[in-house]
Amino acid sequence: MSVEYKYKETCLADPKVIAELLISLDPYIKKLKDILNAGKYEDPECSINLPFDPRWANDVTTVADNFDLRKIKHLVLVGIGGSNLGTQAIYEALKTDLTPEILFADTVSEKTINGIISKLSQLNSKEEFVLDLVCKSGSTVETNENFSLLINFLSRKFGKINNRVVITTGFDSSFWNEAKNKDYFVLEIPKLVGGRYSVFSPVGLFPLLALGFDIKKLLSGAKGAFDNLDTITTSAVISVAHYQKGIGIHNNFFFNPSLEFLGKWQRQLTAESLGKTGKGILPIVSIGSMDLHSMVQLYLGGPKNIYTDFMYSEEFGERLPKVMEAIYKGTVGAYKDAGVPFSEFALSKIDEFLLGYYMQFRMVETVFQAKLLGVNAFDQPNVEDYKQITREILGK
Amino acid sequence: MSVEYKYKETCLADPKVIAELLISLDPYIKKLKDILNAGKYEDPECSINLPFDPRWANDVTTVADNFDLRKIKHLVLVGIGGSNLGTQAIYEALKTDLTPEILFADTVSEKTINGIISKLSQLNSKEEFVLDLVCKSGSTVETNENFSLLINFLSRKFGKINNRVVITTGFDSSFWNEAKNKDYFVLEIPKLVGGRYSVFSPVGLFPLLALGFDIKKLLSGAKGAFDNLDTITTSAVISVAHYQKGIGIHNNFFFNPSLEFLGKWQRQLTAESLGKTGKGILPIVSIGSMDLHSMVQLYLGGPKNIYTDFMYSEEFGERLPKVMEAIYKGTVGAYKDAGVPFSEFALSKIDEFLLGYYMQFRMVETVFQAKLLGVNAFDQPNVEDYKQITREILGK
Repeated sequence: MSVEYKYKETCLADPKVIAELLISLDPYIKKLKDILNAGKYEDPECSINLPFDPRWANDVTTVADNFDLRKIKHLVLVGIGGSNLGTQAIYEALKTDLTPEILFADTVSEKTINGIISKLSQLNSKEEFVLDLVCKSGSTVETNENFSLLINFLSRKFGKINNRVVITTGFDSSFWNEAKNKDYFVLEIPKLVGGRYSVFSPVGLFPLLALGFDIKKLLSGAKGAFDNLDTITTSAVISVAHYQKGIGIHNNFFFNPSLEFLGKWQRQLTAESLGKTGKGILPIVSIGSMDLHSMVQLYLGGPKNIYTDFMYSEEFGERLPKVMEAIYKGTVGAYKDAGVPFSEFALSKIDEFLLGYYMQFRMVETVFQAKLLGVNAFDQPNVEDYKQITREILGK
Repeated sequence: MSVEYKYKETCLADPKVIAELLISLDPYIKKLKDILNAGKYEDPECSINLPFDPRWANDVTTVADNFDLRKIKHLVLVGIGGSNLGTQAIYEALKTDLTPEILFADTVSEKTINGIISKLSQLNSKEEFVLDLVCKSGSTVETNENFSLLINFLSRKFGKINNRVVITTGFDSSFWNEAKNKDYFVLEIPKLVGGRYSVFSPVGLFPLLALGFDIKKLLSGAKGAFDNLDTITTSAVISVAHYQKGIGIHNNFFFNPSLEFLGKWQRQLTAESLGKTGKGILPIVSIGSMDLHSMVQLYLGGPKNIYTDFMYSEEFGERLPKVMEAIYKGTVGAYKDAGVPFSEFALSKIDEFLLGYYMQFRMVETVFQAKLLGVNAFDQPNVEDYKQITREILGK
């Protein structure tokens, strides 16, 4: 068991409401199973097929075979939002002293880009980096700016670098065509797989493989999540039942500091999938034990509009973790005493399998939450609003 | 002007409510001015005196004079919550390639402590580190555990290290007495200055001085905030007026990625000061432009229960920042079109002066918010709840 879930005595949802919501999901669960059986990419839900489809691991392995991965010191990931959050979550959770460093070119910041260029300046040969651009649409302003700056810099320093560039993008996007023209490596993101559901496509698989992580184990974990579909539906139902009672803030409280970026990935997943037509659950992320000294006064003493998922590792037990375990139990005890609603997710060993399992669990859960709220889990209609004005200002 | 504030056309508060709330604060403003004039540490509000009192800069300078600051490679800060968040906010905002690295021993994590020990192992002499323990009460579990581990390791490696240890604590705490016994340097935190209001005491001043930051400029900025008391009260009133309308989530949206930790500092300030007796504003932090690709769909399309403060730097203008400026304007335009309430804070050059100004602005604002909400800004009664159970488990 990768994720063990407890909620019964500590949630505020009515068992009758839970039962009704669960039953209402049955037809949709059947639909998801049909999509899984067909294995195609023709429905908005198609991202659930990614871990079962050998194509993606094959694609990224074929590209990675062109590199001597042992020589890579820096992987430069140019991409923002769904293009980098999943990779970053896994990288931050699992990196060791031996993992090549990812340089994230996400937003447009002189400080960030100068930092990246300064590190790349110190490399001795182009074998020591891979430039990995991730952008499905081809039209993300930040990604275009950063890519153009980095290509210029790297070409000036190393000469011809087309065999160090991997473009992961939608078929026929502007980047797809540029990759073909310039002879960059190219990896496809299926048209209907949106950024926040794309970590098991080449979006996440290529950089994770290049960093030395075990993508087969990651995909096994993701497949494993489907063995626990009952828990996924229950967790979705619990959050929506609380939302219906006015408890519309969802606190993802991780008791492993290295999982903070997993929280950031989850934040996008929840916010973009559910926040529309006036509805939506606000995801927040807390980290133990730091946020006991920052946020917990409010969580215990403030307005009762927050539902908390505690994620804690079963790896408690060594000298320091023993203290953390006591702190965790103290926290859960105080929540119980205060009548603040919560669930507990016991996470097994934090490795590629667990992360694949957890991320797939949350993606499927989110799709169920959207169905229960009556919103489209796969679009982000209001994001276009600021982009339009930005484009006008930039004269594009 | 360090912080310029705009809200009139984009907030949802009724001008009559604003006027009434402002008037209700008058007696309290008078009280704060009396406390400033007296310059003593006898009221819970006394932290406002710190920047005006030469004692604290003198104290930390006297201790720092015992170190050759140019030789320091690592400052190890052992402390959690209010003991490190202010220092971390300033460090992350201002650090350059030349700044000594802070190693933060905050929570109890094998991974974190092993990382710190691995870096300290590479030092050649004890001149290259300072161990800075910050803990007012002397009884924080994490701080006690981490300090004891680090003292053991450092003593084994370097022998007698008492002249490399600085203890910042309350008079007569257990750490105070340990410092006297072991001949560590000791710096006092005034009894009534709580962690989240302590950045201008030795809590923040000593590590910031040791890292090479200009603490005089920081304190000048903090003093400068009082020249803008009208804006501080207005900003407090605007947030409370929205809270009274059910808009109880406050989004601190920074358009400078290096200010994310300033947001984490602010998160503690708001949550611990206001979240009690069932009341409280939930502070969340967003970072531009990353969170446009993560959270903005929810902010624009989801439930209308969030008030946003946009903090953006006037340093826009170079090549990349020009793009950021366009994105910022696009975001603000989309918020306007959607009728989502917000304010704008234009921040001048991000340096010690601005950070001192901004942090003092927010601390005084928080005290006003608490007064308007009718809660005690200076206690954290519910934090004791989990600590009690933790202590029982640890048998202490």
